[in-house]
Amino acid sequence: MKKKTTIYDIAEKLELTAATVSRALNNNPKISEKTRKLVQETAIEMNYEQNTLARALKSGKSFNVGVIVPRMDSNFFASVIRGIEEELYPKGYHVIVCQTHDQENLETGNIVSLLNAQVDGILMSISNSKTKNKVFNKLSEKRVPLIFFDRKRDIPDVSSVTIDDFNGSYQATKHLIEQGCKRIAHLSNDRSLEIFKNRYLGYKQAIIDSGLEFDESLVVETISKVDEGRRVAKQLLDMETPPDAIFSSSDFTALGAIQEIKEQGLAIPEDISVVGFSNEPFTRFMELSITSVDQSPIEMGRKAAKVFLQEVNSKSKTKQPQRIILQPELIIRKSSSKRIK
Amino acid sequence: MKKKTTIYDIAEKLELTAATVSRALNNNPKISEKTRKLVQETAIEMNYEQNTLARALKSGKSFNVGVIVPRMDSNFFASVIRGIEEELYPKGYHVIVCQTHDQENLETGNIVSLLNAQVDGILMSISNSKTKNKVFNKLSEKRVPLIFFDRKRDIPDVSSVTIDDFNGSYQATKHLIEQGCKRIAHLSNDRSLEIFKNRYLGYKQAIIDSGLEFDESLVVETISKVDEGRRVAKQLLDMETPPDAIFSSSDFTALGAIQEIKEQGLAIPEDISVVGFSNEPFTRFMELSITSVDQSPIEMGRKAAKVFLQEVNSKSKTKQPQRIILQPELIIRKSSSKRIK
Repeated sequence: MKKKTTIYDIAEKLELTAATVSRALNNNPKISEKTRKLVQETAIEMNYEQNTLARALKSGKSFNVGVIVPRMDSNFFASVIRGIEEELYPKGYHVIVCQTHDQENLETGNIVSLLNAQVDGILMSISNSKTKNKVFNKLSEKRVPLIFFDRKRDIPDVSSVTIDDFNGSYQATKHLIEQGCKRIAHLSNDRSLEIFKNRYLGYKQAIIDSGLEFDESLVVETISKVDEGRRVAKQLLDMETPPDAIFSSSDFTALGAIQEIKEQGLAIPEDISVVGFSNEPFTRFMELSITSVDQSPIEMGRKAAKVFLQEVNSKSKTKQPQRIILQPELIIRKSSSKRIK
Repeated sequence: MKKKTTIYDIAEKLELTAATVSRALNNNPKISEKTRKLVQETAIEMNYEQNTLARALKSGKSFNVGVIVPRMDSNFFASVIRGIEEELYPKGYHVIVCQTHDQENLETGNIVSLLNAQVDGILMSISNSKTKNKVFNKLSEKRVPLIFFDRKRDIPDVSSVTIDDFNGSYQATKHLIEQGCKRIAHLSNDRSLEIFKNRYLGYKQAIIDSGLEFDESLVVETISKVDEGRRVAKQLLDMETPPDAIFSSSDFTALGAIQEIKEQGLAIPEDISVVGFSNEPFTRFMELSITSVDQSPIEMGRKAAKVFLQEVNSKSKTKQPQRIILQPELIIRKSSSKRIK
């Protein structure tokens, strides 16, 4: 029988100590990325069999962190993930991502899958209001840190990193009012989720504060898709007194609305101004660039990752959840400002 | 001591058989998604402790599949992932994704992480030509199916699903020649990767076949970023005899090139035509819509997932790797056609 490769064989070959080899194989952050890679490749070359199950049982750590997002093809979520990675890679963690496509059954399933994959923590943006709290509580019972970002739920023990959606919406709506708009429609979304509720409330408050009449018929609920934006814009334009501005809770519906408005031969921003939310890259690339609310996603990801690191390294038995709220920034572009050419 | 919840307790509560509960907890595809979800939620509510490590050791299956992509925020990769999910979810698998950002060390690291997470297979698009074959061979030794999609390497035992990049480029270049372009530049990329090599070769062949002179100085290597597109376009426009068309191996560099061309006051397509590659959604959204090569990513993902299912369920000891090649489609838009308004 062929002799099994040990960490001592790898250490000898690379002229490193066995302790360094062991740390490198266990993704210990004390070992440089370069050495870690060299050791891991050599271990594979020398056919070293690491018993990962035994290791997981022993160290209790996989150095994998799970991230759950509604969709990864939105620039917003992709950027948050990027921020998480930037913070966690140098600490020896790998990031694995699941998406839910806003489907309720996938949210619970993804959490179970990530637990099965032995992740050391889960950072997530909730997609569905129906997912049971029990599912989340399970994570804290198992002492697997859970951190919400962007779309959160209020659970006493769970930390979160969000932006001030109310203020972002308030500023966007105020900007439209300052441009002279008087009938501002709002493309809303599932308001059982806090973010969309707060965007709606910020919009409403800005209208009330400015002395304009708040008209509930100008608020339409939709989902964050281009085609949906077209559909509801058509509906709004068909009104007896159509709106002179649209503030959308999503850039994708804002884009659909713009397509519909143009197709009807109306001018943007002269006839109707449009403002989106999230600052997706296409809002900047378009020739008719779209005003939008930036949510500093990279910073959101980095902050969420930092909270995870604090929690996973905490020796304390009692948990002090953190609630970090970032301030959004309104980026004014052509779709709502006659002065920008 | 409190009695531990067993699968019999869950079965009794839900009026199901213990076998059904067990299958549902193990993500057995015979159980409907609805029942699976109900059982998993109830298990969590009743505080049922499933020993996932023991289960993984026993069944040898985690029902998690790993996907590795260079980046998930490109619509192309996001759509491939979507195709994979569409095929695998109904079979009880969950999909977990890692990205490499084209960084060599992350590719090896992600494979190790996914193996640690006990995935049943890995579907990946290679980002780096330096990753050692030993790393990939390790997977087949462990009988963890590996399937390449889009960016592959020729490894005897490994199946792949790709598109005919040569033909896609050939068609795109021929289209530019038919529009009357005579000096067609090519924005290339790392040609140690097959896809970029083939895009370059298809471009070159179309030029030679049409009797135009092939001019190596019109080929510039770049990376798939908007700013890079701007930079190399500037370089090309500064030439003594600048090109009258740019065929880019990436939509992102094509977009950058368009921004630079416009900034210099030149007209597209009148002065310079531009064609990209990948059919990213923004190519369609732009007012000056961009001609691009569609790679049917959803179909690519579905095909790759089907190959995985065949391999993971195969009882045969010898492996017959599959090499599936999809045909791309040229989508002609305003950036290269005077007839489209």
